[in-house]
Amino acid sequence: MTHFSHEEISKLEHLYKINLINSCSGFKSANLIGTKSGDGIENVAIFRSVTHVGSEPPLLGVFMRPTTVARNTYDNIKETGFYTLNHVHESIVSEAHHTSAKYDKQISEFDVTSLKSEYKPGIHVPFVATAPVQMHMEFVEEYNIKANGTILIIGKIKALFIQDNLLESDGFVNLSKGNVATINGLDGYAIPKLKERHAYQRPKTTINTQ
Amino acid sequence: MTHFSHEEISKLEHLYKINLINSCSGFKSANLIGTKSGDGIENVAIFRSVTHVGSEPPLLGVFMRPTTVARNTYDNIKETGFYTLNHVHESIVSEAHHTSAKYDKQISEFDVTSLKSEYKPGIHVPFVATAPVQMHMEFVEEYNIKANGTILIIGKIKALFIQDNLLESDGFVNLSKGNVATINGLDGYAIPKLKERHAYQRPKTTINTQ
Repeated sequence: MTHFSHEEISKLEHLYKINLINSCSGFKSANLIGTKSGDGIENVAIFRSVTHVGSEPPLLGVFMRPTTVARNTYDNIKETGFYTLNHVHESIVSEAHHTSAKYDKQISEFDVTSLKSEYKPGIHVPFVATAPVQMHMEFVEEYNIKANGTILIIGKIKALFIQDNLLESDGFVNLSKGNVATINGLDGYAIPKLKERHAYQRPKTTINTQ
Repeated sequence: MTHFSHEEISKLEHLYKINLINSCSGFKSANLIGTKSGDGIENVAIFRSVTHVGSEPPLLGVFMRPTTVARNTYDNIKETGFYTLNHVHESIVSEAHHTSAKYDKQISEFDVTSLKSEYKPGIHVPFVATAPVQMHMEFVEEYNIKANGTILIIGKIKALFIQDNLLESDGFVNLSKGNVATINGLDGYAIPKLKERHAYQRPKTTINTQ
């Protein structure tokens, strides 16, 4: 196996290092976060760190680095209190990835990509049209991560929209039926196909101590 | 699309709800966390919430619910300050999933599954043998998430071990070459195959405002 110590990692060339560390944690979720500024400018940006935090109440977390392209997203969430989470379908991977580009001035990524915004009754933040899973999120709280200055945003699922054929009888959302992407590192995309579901695990009655 | 409001979600039957909310955030990483208690009992448990937090320094986060099976993992991390993260190879999905079973007494999952512990020079916490990616992690800090009582653990990568054929020339760790699993929900496993890598994105010079 190839081995990197902490000291070796710290001395790596920047691009090599961010590729390495961004891809070593495992496969990541691919979500487009839709927001709107107080003066009505739409924003959509890709995030790779949306994580399940709890089911009761339904909470999701996402890490943001406020000095990067995420700035507009963070500011808009704090200004309006709401955002949307939209899954990246196979057909929009390239356009979703382009939302990571850093534009000098505040533009709407809906204007510079083929992504289309969609509004739903009573909800003032934009969804990404045709996304197989869409969520209306309400900001709950934030944590400043001292170790590196990132911010963890915790949000509550206010409304959940799921393409009908993805939802199975026990509540399981079959993401591979929706051709939803997963991300490897900063720029690698895969469309996983579900292999198997495993039963709820109970202790084995005969312990094999070998 | 099927629609669930926040109120409807809160009234769902428990198992339906945890399937729904655990699978709606997107594909998740599959990591086995290895620890050892102060009195030497090994522990290994599967986690679905390991997330990239930053590259400089190299930091990863994971959410734990201290009232569940994660209790031993959390206690051991707090007691010793160290843990390992190990990716789930296709061949150990069933055994990795079994580590989510709740045993009454403190047992080592290495004794009740076919997972084998592996020790490396100078490191006192157990790795999972044959995992394509293994990391030695040092506890940095924790955050108590007020919204639901979970705990976010932030850890620093002390050492990173990667199966040679996964590491590409620019630092990218090609997880699909390692047949690494991703998780959908609580119990769905897929082995993604990388489709494409996209270039670093710069602003488009001609803005299409349509």
